[in-house]
Amino acid sequence: MFSIFDSQMMLRAIELAKRGIYTTAPNPNVGCVITQGDDIVGEGFHFRAGEPHAEVYALRAAGEKACGATAYVTLEPCSHHGRTPPCADALIAAGVSRVVCAMVDPNPKVAGRGIQRMRDAGIQVDVGLMQAQAEALNPGFIKVMKTGLPFVQLKLASSIDGRTALANGQSQWITGAEARADVQVFRAQAGAILSTSQTVLDDNPSLNVRWAQLPETVKSVYQQDDVRQPVRVILDTHRKVSDSATLFSLDGDIIIVTAKDDKPSVNESVTVLTVEQQDGHLNLNSTLRALAAKGIHHIWVEAGATLAGSLLNAGLVDEVIVYQAPKLMGSDSRGLVKLEGLTSMSQVPTFTLTDVTRIGDDVRFRMQKPQPD
Amino acid sequence: MFSIFDSQMMLRAIELAKRGIYTTAPNPNVGCVITQGDDIVGEGFHFRAGEPHAEVYALRAAGEKACGATAYVTLEPCSHHGRTPPCADALIAAGVSRVVCAMVDPNPKVAGRGIQRMRDAGIQVDVGLMQAQAEALNPGFIKVMKTGLPFVQLKLASSIDGRTALANGQSQWITGAEARADVQVFRAQAGAILSTSQTVLDDNPSLNVRWAQLPETVKSVYQQDDVRQPVRVILDTHRKVSDSATLFSLDGDIIIVTAKDDKPSVNESVTVLTVEQQDGHLNLNSTLRALAAKGIHHIWVEAGATLAGSLLNAGLVDEVIVYQAPKLMGSDSRGLVKLEGLTSMSQVPTFTLTDVTRIGDDVRFRMQKPQPD
Repeated sequence: MFSIFDSQMMLRAIELAKRGIYTTAPNPNVGCVITQGDDIVGEGFHFRAGEPHAEVYALRAAGEKACGATAYVTLEPCSHHGRTPPCADALIAAGVSRVVCAMVDPNPKVAGRGIQRMRDAGIQVDVGLMQAQAEALNPGFIKVMKTGLPFVQLKLASSIDGRTALANGQSQWITGAEARADVQVFRAQAGAILSTSQTVLDDNPSLNVRWAQLPETVKSVYQQDDVRQPVRVILDTHRKVSDSATLFSLDGDIIIVTAKDDKPSVNESVTVLTVEQQDGHLNLNSTLRALAAKGIHHIWVEAGATLAGSLLNAGLVDEVIVYQAPKLMGSDSRGLVKLEGLTSMSQVPTFTLTDVTRIGDDVRFRMQKPQPD
Repeated sequence: MFSIFDSQMMLRAIELAKRGIYTTAPNPNVGCVITQGDDIVGEGFHFRAGEPHAEVYALRAAGEKACGATAYVTLEPCSHHGRTPPCADALIAAGVSRVVCAMVDPNPKVAGRGIQRMRDAGIQVDVGLMQAQAEALNPGFIKVMKTGLPFVQLKLASSIDGRTALANGQSQWITGAEARADVQVFRAQAGAILSTSQTVLDDNPSLNVRWAQLPETVKSVYQQDDVRQPVRVILDTHRKVSDSATLFSLDGDIIIVTAKDDKPSVNESVTVLTVEQQDGHLNLNSTLRALAAKGIHHIWVEAGATLAGSLLNAGLVDEVIVYQAPKLMGSDSRGLVKLEGLTSMSQVPTFTLTDVTRIGDDVRFRMQKPQPD
């Protein structure tokens, strides 16, 4: 069904889709290539919600050459009227004769309807080329559409012996400047940065993306205004965070998740979200579902050992990213993750290492939960 | 002073020297290449204490071609009568006209005397080619000769969050079979494996080299009988280890280091070494000096968090080797290193990462103490 040329074109479409990783949220990253014979006649990718989809850019570039052409799209073209008209209709109208999709759109509003619509119009539609790579473009979008829960990355940073602070609380800086800059890249790709009232009270963090700290590889491709500020989400069960906390004075939206909405929001960029409690804490599953319903598909968690442990215990973490500094801080220092009730090694959360990379003087581990068989 | 050809020949001599890393202790690893014009006419390396030195093997291979030849040696040829006659004399007798040494022998019995002896005999001797690489062949030998203290490698193994056992003591197995096999390679290169009575009482370990677990790259080059069993050193201040511990029933020498020699040794392969106490523990500096005096130049430490911390606190560790498994065991689990009295991040032991390697499902860090400026 697929030729080597098909694979080369889909790979190019995936490359194009990646250009949107800092900008498209909550929309998925999508790339499109249109070919006529052996020639690329149009390329496009989705850049920002509300702006045209990848197919539209590619069709515009192809112009009349789209007639009889093949279109390679990393995600099934949409069939519904959203903020833009359906892309399936645009491909039909342009006279494209074949469409290759890497994957079916998991969005229940699409879910094969775009493909059906094009087939009904006489277009040959082939589905499934480089599906795994296309899925990797949009882990959050796909997880929310399939499960209602967002994709959660848990960021941890410690010494080699897993310590985050001395017994007296001293912790700055365990990891180096390069590791902290690397964190900025992950923050910039997330739909939200999630933390807790405790972290805000302890550290008064900004929890935003700092343009100056992004690597040159990012800054050379984007304008400063292009890069979104992820929504900052603070779990604040009892509304302990003061209105004067630094994060309220910085650009970007904030969601305070609380158990009882008895205080007004701090200002117009702050939304208060009420979630039920469970054992005296916010129900984390409900919290994440509520955030997903607000269009937050991809969450980057930076908090303390307690929230990290609770998320892990609840099975809500998709990827753990650990920065380790070549230091030994000793057993009296503070631990990385609070996990309770472990009595057998078989209960210990075990991950699949997907990447180990030196970042400056430190090392970054990326680990995923093993998939169930 | 040195040509590219000289460097190539010295590199070859260093490669040859490495063949002895499992066998020469307590002698240093040494390699030798003899050339006549552009041709190698003889090669040799030291294989085992009591057997001929590298230069002797190379001279034997060169035969009459040694006359007028150049000899490349990774370490200054010896000038004293040990278990074998002085190599400097052998090179003179063979009529070699130039000797290139990577480094001066730090052994006070040699320390330039071999070089002087050859120069006095009219040989051109050039010193210092690839010295750093040659020094790396014999970290233990060099450190003992210069300081009286052995080269100490501290082996640690933990989860990503720096835990060695659950709160109830369960710990088997944190790291995988590949990491445990890698440990065998380090054990086999060490002059001694050092542990404590506590570890022996808790785990009843063998602390030996298991031929079956060595990698094929080792087994294909050596015969099983070639690979030494490192001396097993047990710190047992109060002679708590029972004579029935497994390690006494296995091949290889054992040294029990104790504070008071009031019990006889278990059997003829067990030596009892008495060392003074300091704050209720064996004085670690004195212990290591006493071991060095017994010809133990390179020590591989496998023990618990207390000894690890004490050695680090005393500044006696040259290299830390940490195996980490992609698991999270939580803050209630047991810590990796006991370090006390840290009140500022500036006091935290910080290392230079020299290597990060995936070993099976785990990751191995190699870290050295930063050298003083």
